[in-house]
Amino acid sequence: MNEMTTRRSGGRAARHARRSAPLEDTLRPIRPGLAGGQYRPLSPEGVARIHQAALDALEQIGLADAPPSGIAHMTRAGAILGDDGRLRFPRALVEDMLARANRTITLHGRDPRHDLDLSSQRVHYGTAGAAVHLVDPVTREYRDSTLQDLHDAARIADRLDNIHFVQRPMVARDVTDNREMDLNTVYACCAGTTKHVGTSFSEPGFVADALALLHMVAGSEEAWRARPFVSNSNCFVVPPMKFATESCQVMEACIAGGMPVLLLSAGQAGATAPASIAGAIVQSVAECLAGLVYVNAVAPGHPAIFGTWPFVSDLRSGAMSGGSGEQALLSAGCAQMHAFYDLPGGAAAGFADAKLPDMQAGWEQMCSNVLAGLSGLNLVYEAAGMHASLLGFCLESLILGDDLIGQAMRCVRGIEVDEDSVSLEVMRATCIGGPGHYLGSDQTLHLMQRDYVYPALADRSSPKEWVEKGQPDLLQKATARKAEILAERAAARFDAMTDATIRARFKIHLPA
Amino acid sequence: MNEMTTRRSGGRAARHARRSAPLEDTLRPIRPGLAGGQYRPLSPEGVARIHQAALDALEQIGLADAPPSGIAHMTRAGAILGDDGRLRFPRALVEDMLARANRTITLHGRDPRHDLDLSSQRVHYGTAGAAVHLVDPVTREYRDSTLQDLHDAARIADRLDNIHFVQRPMVARDVTDNREMDLNTVYACCAGTTKHVGTSFSEPGFVADALALLHMVAGSEEAWRARPFVSNSNCFVVPPMKFATESCQVMEACIAGGMPVLLLSAGQAGATAPASIAGAIVQSVAECLAGLVYVNAVAPGHPAIFGTWPFVSDLRSGAMSGGSGEQALLSAGCAQMHAFYDLPGGAAAGFADAKLPDMQAGWEQMCSNVLAGLSGLNLVYEAAGMHASLLGFCLESLILGDDLIGQAMRCVRGIEVDEDSVSLEVMRATCIGGPGHYLGSDQTLHLMQRDYVYPALADRSSPKEWVEKGQPDLLQKATARKAEILAERAAARFDAMTDATIRARFKIHLPA
Repeated sequence: MNEMTTRRSGGRAARHARRSAPLEDTLRPIRPGLAGGQYRPLSPEGVARIHQAALDALEQIGLADAPPSGIAHMTRAGAILGDDGRLRFPRALVEDMLARANRTITLHGRDPRHDLDLSSQRVHYGTAGAAVHLVDPVTREYRDSTLQDLHDAARIADRLDNIHFVQRPMVARDVTDNREMDLNTVYACCAGTTKHVGTSFSEPGFVADALALLHMVAGSEEAWRARPFVSNSNCFVVPPMKFATESCQVMEACIAGGMPVLLLSAGQAGATAPASIAGAIVQSVAECLAGLVYVNAVAPGHPAIFGTWPFVSDLRSGAMSGGSGEQALLSAGCAQMHAFYDLPGGAAAGFADAKLPDMQAGWEQMCSNVLAGLSGLNLVYEAAGMHASLLGFCLESLILGDDLIGQAMRCVRGIEVDEDSVSLEVMRATCIGGPGHYLGSDQTLHLMQRDYVYPALADRSSPKEWVEKGQPDLLQKATARKAEILAERAAARFDAMTDATIRARFKIHLPA
Repeated sequence: MNEMTTRRSGGRAARHARRSAPLEDTLRPIRPGLAGGQYRPLSPEGVARIHQAALDALEQIGLADAPPSGIAHMTRAGAILGDDGRLRFPRALVEDMLARANRTITLHGRDPRHDLDLSSQRVHYGTAGAAVHLVDPVTREYRDSTLQDLHDAARIADRLDNIHFVQRPMVARDVTDNREMDLNTVYACCAGTTKHVGTSFSEPGFVADALALLHMVAGSEEAWRARPFVSNSNCFVVPPMKFATESCQVMEACIAGGMPVLLLSAGQAGATAPASIAGAIVQSVAECLAGLVYVNAVAPGHPAIFGTWPFVSDLRSGAMSGGSGEQALLSAGCAQMHAFYDLPGGAAAGFADAKLPDMQAGWEQMCSNVLAGLSGLNLVYEAAGMHASLLGFCLESLILGDDLIGQAMRCVRGIEVDEDSVSLEVMRATCIGGPGHYLGSDQTLHLMQRDYVYPALADRSSPKEWVEKGQPDLLQKATARKAEILAERAAARFDAMTDATIRARFKIHLPA
């Protein structure tokens, strides 16, 4: 292909369109699972010290409030129940369980195209959270989030290349019965996307229904167990250093049902975790190590994600501050600990304090998202759409987050330095007797689509072009895109027979 | 200090105010010159390869178009002028000049409080660029930028803690005579801020006037030379691999006048530099090494900043794209090369493609700013206020950029891991017989102001508080803050006598 030929054969618009045409997946400049790790906020000594402090905390402080079943499992494995009711973990036990833990986890999508390989420092971004509001950025309104909102979020995420999984980001507040809410949450998410779904359960007794539904969607229990496409986001601890009794029972039920577990420790630095960044990481690592012992005591090798999710307070007010630099450091530091243990891990990043998708939201979401990716976090939860420090979810923001994460992923992909990329021959050919620029060079044309990431909605036109286009507004473009996606037929919906079977057995609140 | 006591002695607002009170400079969680380097986009092999390729390019390709004076200086030092008019640099020459280069540069502020130590990987953020428009985010208008705009920008930057220097960000388009424009640019910037100022000169003959003015401001030529508080931003090359003849003559005049020089190589990947990230870095490094030879051939040890400023094109359209992940990688990769040479260096980051301070602007500005800081870039130019890929400057965005950079700097500061921060004793005291939370712990209170960065304008309130406050709009807050600053008396203005002397000699377009 020769640039001069293409120049002659078409106008600027045609060239632009050709250059913008989609590439095959394997040639794309960014893909799920790019390897991070170029950013290391902790020194090797820092990592070792945090590890030792976490072991000390487990051995000396331990965790209170394990359910009887958990106490039985863990003491059988070697944990020691103190007179004070706290379960303490000798370091040999922790080390044994670290050796036993599953390191080759694939989080399945209902469509295998969306499978996520969590090995090494492969990075994936997705939604998560339990926002209680849907944010309308046009009316600037926060209203109660509904099941339909949740389904819409899943449908939109399904269409966004850089959203790799869909953990339930909102609470369906219009489904007031908790059992129905948990079940309908699974339904609404899975009916909206074939990507991996994450969800939680309010009570252990609610797990069975969800599993029954998932067996139907998968076709059989066997098919479900072969490729479980839903994981349990499980807040198994109430920081500091207490098991969440009922959540632990939920976890046991999920393990029995073959569902991968996200061991989620969500302390808040300065409130339920130490105010120092390092201390909050220590506590979170200690709690997740306790969770790892728990899971592997119940079912050795059961897929569990090391979910160190320390949050941070604005210490002036005590309010959570997701958009802070401190939060970005916390999650990146945790990712480095995951890499130290070589465990599949996840943490929260990309959620804003900003109430609306404004400039503040942009900088807050990018800061922690790009650092999480560069630190090699396997699963970046809450990466898009989340506002008001987890209280509001915004569909337009989710759509814009896809562009934002695309650029973050370009950074994760990094800089290739090889014979071709250092370009000495290209420079020579350009400078000596050449055209004096690189516009039409073979290298430029070759790299145009394979190395460069182009945003879908972000504007890169000149001020003049921008005025000619009528000064397009970012938010309006996102709103239009949202309407477009939601007007399409939802590709992920279950087939009619399956859907009818589900609806015959369960009360499904979404219209068929 | 005991939290319980303070709780009793005042209400929530009082506590918030006390916690928000300013700290002494040395206790602040972020300060100019924090050390980066935790992010390394290049492997050691990649750095070595780029270095070798740059040396090859200098030896084999060389640079065209040096002025006669430069040819004389550089051939005397050992460069070889080819029959093709290109000046080539044997690697021994480059290595000698690298050994001779000044590594202990302080960029002075007119007020010594604002001196910038460029050693090691100390990070500083500031403005820069040559935008031709002022952006009014309220009317969404791009209009020609003026001298008053430039002065206003300097005055605002003077008041923002996280803007550490003020390189001229806009062109005073209302001053149509180039000689007057260059001089008035220096006046408008220096009269607006006591921080270090950067500027450029259109012709070598314009430098003398500026030096005369600077001597008056400093009090004498000797005082100016002892603490030069203005540097020359010098585009000494026209990439690829050509000297910019006239700019080189400007550079020689600045060197003679004791003015530090920013050796600015601003190739555009895919247009005037190779499209590969690594190739664009190679070319930029080669060009700046040529500049380093030049400066040190003229005046050994003259303060020069290694200004690898590769930009990047959106290859679909050829337009510059400052907000891209590719740009963030370019500048961070360059910073790593500066660290390899242990040379004071600068690059561009933080400029947006977005036309307005919207969500896109936020994510674009944060992406490259935080990566530039973490890569240890000494001088992050164009870090705030810049839109439309350098074509528009926005005062409100500059103000918001201060908050944005504050969070980026918090990330640069990083995670301390020491006995105190790992917090095992704090955890023990909290969990065993303690309150079960860290809200009132001594550690929390101690770290509250010393470890946490609080934004000035970004909103962290809950949706409920936000509604109660009337849904404050980020941009409106920035506009109000701008008006507030510009209504103040400009602290940096020259004393009346100096000002009168300047105005007697030069045509100053700003009203006295």
